[in-house]
Amino acid sequence: MSQTNVRSNLSGPQYDAWLGYHAALPGANGGLHKAAPIWSKRIEVQEQHHVMDTALTELSQGLSKLYGVQPEIIKAQTQDALHNERIPAIRLGTLDGSRFAAATLTDSERAAVHGEGFIIREDEAQRELVISSATLQGVLYAVFHLLRELTLKPERAQTGAASDDMKHGKHKRIDITEQPVNSLRMINQWDNVDGSIERGYAGRSIFYENGEFTRDIKRIRDYARLLASTGINAVAINNVNVHRKESLFLAERYLGEVAKFATAFRDYGIRLFLSANYASPIEVGGLQSADPLDEQVREWWSIQTAKVYAAIPDFGGYLIKADSENRPGPFTYNRDHAEGANMLAEALRPFGGLVIWRCFVYNCKQDWRDRSTDRARAAYDHFKPLDGRFADNVILQIKNGPMDFQVREAVSPLFGGMENTNQVIEFQITQEYTGQQRHLAYLVPQWKEVLDFDTYAKGEGSEIKRIADGSLYRRPYSGFAAVSNIGADACWTGHPLAQANLYGYGRLGWNPELSAEQIADEWVRLTFGHDEQVVERITGMLLCSLDIYESYTAPLGVGWMVNPDHHYGPNVDGYEYSKWGTYHFADCHGIGVDRTVKSGTGYTSQYHAENAARYESLETCPDELILFFHHVPYTHVLHSGKTVIQHIYDTHFEGVEQAEALAETWKELEGKVDPVIYSKVATLQAEQAEHAKEWRDMINTYFYRKSGIQDEHARTIY
Amino acid sequence: MSQTNVRSNLSGPQYDAWLGYHAALPGANGGLHKAAPIWSKRIEVQEQHHVMDTALTELSQGLSKLYGVQPEIIKAQTQDALHNERIPAIRLGTLDGSRFAAATLTDSERAAVHGEGFIIREDEAQRELVISSATLQGVLYAVFHLLRELTLKPERAQTGAASDDMKHGKHKRIDITEQPVNSLRMINQWDNVDGSIERGYAGRSIFYENGEFTRDIKRIRDYARLLASTGINAVAINNVNVHRKESLFLAERYLGEVAKFATAFRDYGIRLFLSANYASPIEVGGLQSADPLDEQVREWWSIQTAKVYAAIPDFGGYLIKADSENRPGPFTYNRDHAEGANMLAEALRPFGGLVIWRCFVYNCKQDWRDRSTDRARAAYDHFKPLDGRFADNVILQIKNGPMDFQVREAVSPLFGGMENTNQVIEFQITQEYTGQQRHLAYLVPQWKEVLDFDTYAKGEGSEIKRIADGSLYRRPYSGFAAVSNIGADACWTGHPLAQANLYGYGRLGWNPELSAEQIADEWVRLTFGHDEQVVERITGMLLCSLDIYESYTAPLGVGWMVNPDHHYGPNVDGYEYSKWGTYHFADCHGIGVDRTVKSGTGYTSQYHAENAARYESLETCPDELILFFHHVPYTHVLHSGKTVIQHIYDTHFEGVEQAEALAETWKELEGKVDPVIYSKVATLQAEQAEHAKEWRDMINTYFYRKSGIQDEHARTIY
Repeated sequence: MSQTNVRSNLSGPQYDAWLGYHAALPGANGGLHKAAPIWSKRIEVQEQHHVMDTALTELSQGLSKLYGVQPEIIKAQTQDALHNERIPAIRLGTLDGSRFAAATLTDSERAAVHGEGFIIREDEAQRELVISSATLQGVLYAVFHLLRELTLKPERAQTGAASDDMKHGKHKRIDITEQPVNSLRMINQWDNVDGSIERGYAGRSIFYENGEFTRDIKRIRDYARLLASTGINAVAINNVNVHRKESLFLAERYLGEVAKFATAFRDYGIRLFLSANYASPIEVGGLQSADPLDEQVREWWSIQTAKVYAAIPDFGGYLIKADSENRPGPFTYNRDHAEGANMLAEALRPFGGLVIWRCFVYNCKQDWRDRSTDRARAAYDHFKPLDGRFADNVILQIKNGPMDFQVREAVSPLFGGMENTNQVIEFQITQEYTGQQRHLAYLVPQWKEVLDFDTYAKGEGSEIKRIADGSLYRRPYSGFAAVSNIGADACWTGHPLAQANLYGYGRLGWNPELSAEQIADEWVRLTFGHDEQVVERITGMLLCSLDIYESYTAPLGVGWMVNPDHHYGPNVDGYEYSKWGTYHFADCHGIGVDRTVKSGTGYTSQYHAENAARYESLETCPDELILFFHHVPYTHVLHSGKTVIQHIYDTHFEGVEQAEALAETWKELEGKVDPVIYSKVATLQAEQAEHAKEWRDMINTYFYRKSGIQDEHARTIY
Repeated sequence: MSQTNVRSNLSGPQYDAWLGYHAALPGANGGLHKAAPIWSKRIEVQEQHHVMDTALTELSQGLSKLYGVQPEIIKAQTQDALHNERIPAIRLGTLDGSRFAAATLTDSERAAVHGEGFIIREDEAQRELVISSATLQGVLYAVFHLLRELTLKPERAQTGAASDDMKHGKHKRIDITEQPVNSLRMINQWDNVDGSIERGYAGRSIFYENGEFTRDIKRIRDYARLLASTGINAVAINNVNVHRKESLFLAERYLGEVAKFATAFRDYGIRLFLSANYASPIEVGGLQSADPLDEQVREWWSIQTAKVYAAIPDFGGYLIKADSENRPGPFTYNRDHAEGANMLAEALRPFGGLVIWRCFVYNCKQDWRDRSTDRARAAYDHFKPLDGRFADNVILQIKNGPMDFQVREAVSPLFGGMENTNQVIEFQITQEYTGQQRHLAYLVPQWKEVLDFDTYAKGEGSEIKRIADGSLYRRPYSGFAAVSNIGADACWTGHPLAQANLYGYGRLGWNPELSAEQIADEWVRLTFGHDEQVVERITGMLLCSLDIYESYTAPLGVGWMVNPDHHYGPNVDGYEYSKWGTYHFADCHGIGVDRTVKSGTGYTSQYHAENAARYESLETCPDELILFFHHVPYTHVLHSGKTVIQHIYDTHFEGVEQAEALAETWKELEGKVDPVIYSKVATLQAEQAEHAKEWRDMINTYFYRKSGIQDEHARTIY
């Protein structure tokens, strides 16, 4: 059976995404940025390195798209041959590898930039632009940053023009210092070698086809480029559910192919990780056991890992989903997660590799009849007791919430629960529960809310972002991970506006202080140009989109209510009588999950006192999470002043109106955005508006039938 | 990708099914039947024909298994060479083709046997047994009948022993005349050429593997043999949902393969039909249209049909699912079903072929919010107006009920609604909605109930069986069709006891007057022998099995409440908010579908007055169908004296106890039945008992939560 990805129209604005530099935009604001900076016609570089080559190519192409002139590139073997300051140029180099930086920066300025941070500095005369970093990756990030700035602020190009980011000297010259806040900024691909993508909504995999690695390395490089441009520096290239064939990725059968992918990503400063099957010693190695304390097993992993590093010297490490949803793990051998992870850490340590161990562990065979179990408790119950026992090159990857990427759920109490353990926060860019890239849902506001959540772990100011970035507990490894939303679609993400989520995730990983508004504005301007109506309408659509989606789906933090398996579309009882532990307990009197200490599952006690008390009490529990923490009658009055049942009716009626308004807003942009993108989005927004009605009617009817309570406004409920 | 059917253990009692003739049975009653009849050592035949060869082989093998002696077979070219009455023998022949019948039967006796009917008659001295029929198929049926009689009643073999079926002469000799009641006795295979079976629960297809016809013709012959032994005379070899590849069965690509299957079935007197894609002129012929009134289309079908008959001279005809569940059909061209069917009839008429046109037509895109639609009405609404307009070689195939093979639903009002149209009744042997061959459900009692239902179409005594057999309206074509339950499993049917359904269907098609008890007793004795405990226990299990299944699944005729798509396991709202038109409308007050004329969809008016009145009124509507016809409060008191809600609770608790009792009963038979069958059934009955609890608890909890009404007996509801 032969199946091939459709590769139609792999160019143009939808494929260029936010890296088109306005070269192909329609309308008044498209086309060339008029005034080219003096330094933009020449690029000088001294170092020879594949990442430097990438930086050069990107810079050259970007400037050429922006200003219509191909810069001259001067490569020199010796430092002396260059840096004639009389010739205007951009001068690129690492702090140690070029004399550009030495000539430009003071020692203290140099010391302030480390790792992947960078400086971009214009001289007083604005004839020279020096780009430098301690690392080659940093230089590449600086190049993308510069191009972004020039695209976003065409006035940059005009000597002496004002700009917020410029230092206020005599001449307002470019002087940017950036340092990434998170050290690991990772993407997880849930791609399978058969070409399918678990939770993929943008076509088939760009990585694999029919059991083989794609030969279309160009597409992989194009993806690496998109990622690097937002600051991503790590990628796990296969599904965390590692099936039979993918288990062989670390064996001879596939390792050469993996190495080819590693090369493509390496050129963009991205380290490659593999999701590994914990049972690999059995399935790949032919051993009888995968017991982490078994010497044979340990030896197998050491040897196998050495082989991986022989093929990929900068291999990142293993991403592991163990003892979760029927995946193998150390539990089989009565070992705990720390024993399980540390064994792999030992194999990776000699090479500087990492174990990234997912905390998405719960009993997926629990009985809905057992009211004492609570899936939300699981990660904390499993991992909290192991704090301090993980090796220093193990990182736990913790989902933002305790359940599973719902449109609304509490934050994971594991953040703030483990002082002595490396942690990264896991988000889901792919819209599994948030409309599957058929509904519009800009996720950055949700991620911001989680990152800004104060855990009180070390008193006030212990926000999750400070745990994720490692600063609160001074952990060596930390950062962000997220499940990608891309596929073989020409626009990468199924819904063209879903590109904003991939972009936003990268930007937020670099700097969690960026606001959702700022990121949206950046993405829209980079993608669509500066037409003020276009910018205002699309940012407006993005910023209200998640609230709209929430309003017509599961109410008040209860979550789920989706069709099992594929998770698209309404099904109030979809998981109500299942083994997966996601129940709303709606009956003719009320709804919600009692997770209090007083009368429920005791989940609230997993938070630090301030949050525990807030959630425990009906008086202080926020409305939007009321059904996540409490079982209440339909007649319970929310802080909003509405009853629960009336809130359900109101939000569902309003949500449909708002979804219809999204579609109408988009129609205003016909002729003002790329026609292919216009047409795709128009179709999807119409579908969303229609599908929102299904949600509205099923949810409203369900609760009307169950409660018997009329809508106060007597709207149509079936 | 290579996938091969597992062909393990294709012999032994589970594979022999009811044709083992006790040769391999364990225990006291197994082994050889002791006294062989005098005539059993010699078989004489004059006619040369493949069906006669089959009859000879079956007779010889059967007698040899029964008595341990291989009969001598005497074939003679001339009539004179044989029929020496002094030599004891079985003498086989058609009424016209041999002189055995002429010598034995009077003219009036001969005239009483026609078509596939037969006579089996022992002479006064019980030294000769003459088997005769007007047709070769009839001779074959007689052979199977004789073997069945000899197996069921070992005393047959003893000269002069009493038997119910014998005429009471001086010597109680064998004297049997049988005539099939239904002319068409058909099996529908829902097998796909990829090897899957739609609604198959007994492994992969025995017909196809990986896009090709199986080369294992032996297995096809073995299946044909099973079918013929119960009287089946027609088979449609592919799924009524005709996909891309299967559309080509009537084209050159596959026709040679189809012809090989036809040969295998022909040897057992079974005519082969194909399910055809109504869009074949487009998909196979490359035309632009499939409009039945388009001359090109008509010509295409004529030519294509001629090619089919060139390859298969006794081809049965086309089975068509048109304009149903997204299948193409005449509606595309604004033609009605009569126009659609008659066009095919015209193509088939020159060859004596039939069009079998399914009436399973309804709108599968209806809106659950629209209370005026009613899927149950659809078949009648579509076809009743067309009565009299179908060509005389068109037969409508009507499902037993108006919905879709539920464990309990009303009978189809189309029976009795079409006086001038050929009709066959369609049953479903495969247990799609009745436990999928993982739960025990002997379906013959349900079929009997339907067949015995009096439509009052021509006054009292207008039972459905008289419509199905063509006698009520004196229609030329009539009979039974049913969806097979077999697959590549070693026992054919997944659950070994599900063989009883295949057997029972065939026997009932031959003679609808047989009782469910009689058929069960026959099947158990043929399969397991005459141990009285074995017979009593298994027939007992079979006869109560469907009631048990009904008791713990959807209550009181409302149907469904299964998981969508695969239809296994409880899901009360599974189809409640779908487009498929199967809604129970349960709210906090009550449940059921109001199909009355007075206040509902008016469906009751599709029945003749007596039944319409009975169903219309709450007073006279039978309890078991109350929710099929009425929406009632949970507190409505049934004729049984219980409220609806208490009935739901009681039946669900009792059903589980009964399912557990089935498992216990089976355990009594360990060592008394074939160990492979024992073990399979034991595992399945344990699974059923466990799964019945899921049903009980989900249904009870659902209705308890919704109604808020406690169980009178305070049993555990979650």
